[in-house]
Amino acid sequence: MRFSPLVEQLMDAFRVLPGVGPKTAQRMAMHLLERERPGGQRLAAVIQQAIEEVGYCQRCRTLTEADICVLCESSRRDDSLLCVVESPADQLAIEEAGGFHGRYFVLHGHLSPLDGIGPDAIGLDLLESLIAEGNIREVVLATNPTVEGEATAHFIAAQLSHYGVSFSRLAYGVPMGGELEYVDGGTLSRAFNGRQPFASD
Amino acid sequence: MRFSPLVEQLMDAFRVLPGVGPKTAQRMAMHLLERERPGGQRLAAVIQQAIEEVGYCQRCRTLTEADICVLCESSRRDDSLLCVVESPADQLAIEEAGGFHGRYFVLHGHLSPLDGIGPDAIGLDLLESLIAEGNIREVVLATNPTVEGEATAHFIAAQLSHYGVSFSRLAYGVPMGGELEYVDGGTLSRAFNGRQPFASD
Repeated sequence: MRFSPLVEQLMDAFRVLPGVGPKTAQRMAMHLLERERPGGQRLAAVIQQAIEEVGYCQRCRTLTEADICVLCESSRRDDSLLCVVESPADQLAIEEAGGFHGRYFVLHGHLSPLDGIGPDAIGLDLLESLIAEGNIREVVLATNPTVEGEATAHFIAAQLSHYGVSFSRLAYGVPMGGELEYVDGGTLSRAFNGRQPFASD
Repeated sequence: MRFSPLVEQLMDAFRVLPGVGPKTAQRMAMHLLERERPGGQRLAAVIQQAIEEVGYCQRCRTLTEADICVLCESSRRDDSLLCVVESPADQLAIEEAGGFHGRYFVLHGHLSPLDGIGPDAIGLDLLESLIAEGNIREVVLATNPTVEGEATAHFIAAQLSHYGVSFSRLAYGVPMGGELEYVDGGTLSRAFNGRQPFASD
C-alpha cells in the first residue's frame, strides 16, 4: 500500500536517524501524526534551529550554539589536564563515567588521508594553540581503540611533542563485568601483556 | 555533563518519538549535528509540512494531505467489502499482509466513554453514510482483539445492523509459526472452541 505522497515522505525522512529502518520510520510517522502533533512541531522547530545555530566551541570544538561552551567557561575544571576525543559523543561518555575533571578537545573524526581528512580537519592548529598557552601538563589521547584512532593519537603526540607536555592513552584490557570467554583475542592478548601486579592482602 | 541548552533541547525533543529513550535521543541528536545536517533539515521541513497539511480522507478517514486518499480514489478495489480498523497503522499491516482488496474505514481509536471518546470521535456518522450508499455487502470489523476493540465492534454492528449488510470479525486462534507452549491461555481456549475439521487426505 502506498500512503499519500506527504505521509510517505515523512516515513522516508525519519530514516536519516541512526538505527531507524523502514518499520520504525513508519511507526514514528504514524505516532507523530496520530498522537503527537504538538511534540512533532516542537521537534521540527528544534531540529531546524539546532542545525542553523549549533557550531563548534572556539576553544574545544565541542558542539555548542555559543562561542565558548559551558565546559570551557567553567572555572571548576582542571586546566592542567586535556582529554582529546574523536566526537562529542565520546566526550559525553567520559563525562558520564565521571572521574575526569580536566578539559576536552574534540577532533570531530580521525585522520584519514584517503578521505581527505588531514590535520586541519581535526583542528590540530587549535589544539596546538591550547597547548602553547602553557597550562596543560598532560594530554590524554582518548581517540578510539581502532587502527585510525591509534594512528591519530600517534600523529598528534609526534606533532606536539616539542611542547614538553606528557601524552597518555587510555588503558587497554578486558572490559569490566564481561566474561573472558566472549572477549576477542586482540583485547585478551593486550590485557595479558599489560597485566598488573596483584596485591593479595 | 550538560551540553549547551540548544543541544540539550534537541536531545529532549527526540524523546517524543516512540521507543526513543534518553540514550537513543542523544545518539540521534549527535548524529544529525555531526553527520547529517542536510538530512536533518529535510526531516524538520517534512515533519512541519506533514503536521500542517496531513488530515483525514473525507471518505475513509485515513491519513492523507488530499481530500480523498489514493486508496479511495482507486478503481481497482472491491466496493462491496469494507474493512474497519482502529488506526492507519492497522490498515497498513493488513495491506502489507495482502489478500484483502476491499475498501477501508479508519476509526482513529476505539470507543472509550470514560475518556470522552464516543461514536462521533470514531466517525460513526461517516461510516454510516458510506454503508447507506448501498454498495457494501460485508463489513469486516478488524478492530483490535482487546476488550475495547471488541466493544467497539459490537457497538458498530448493533448501530448499523438495519442496513442489511453482513458484519464479520477476524478469526481468533493461535498465531502462525508460534509454539503452543508460549501462547496465552485466552488465545488457546478461543482456538480450541473455534477448531476446524481437518481433511487428512
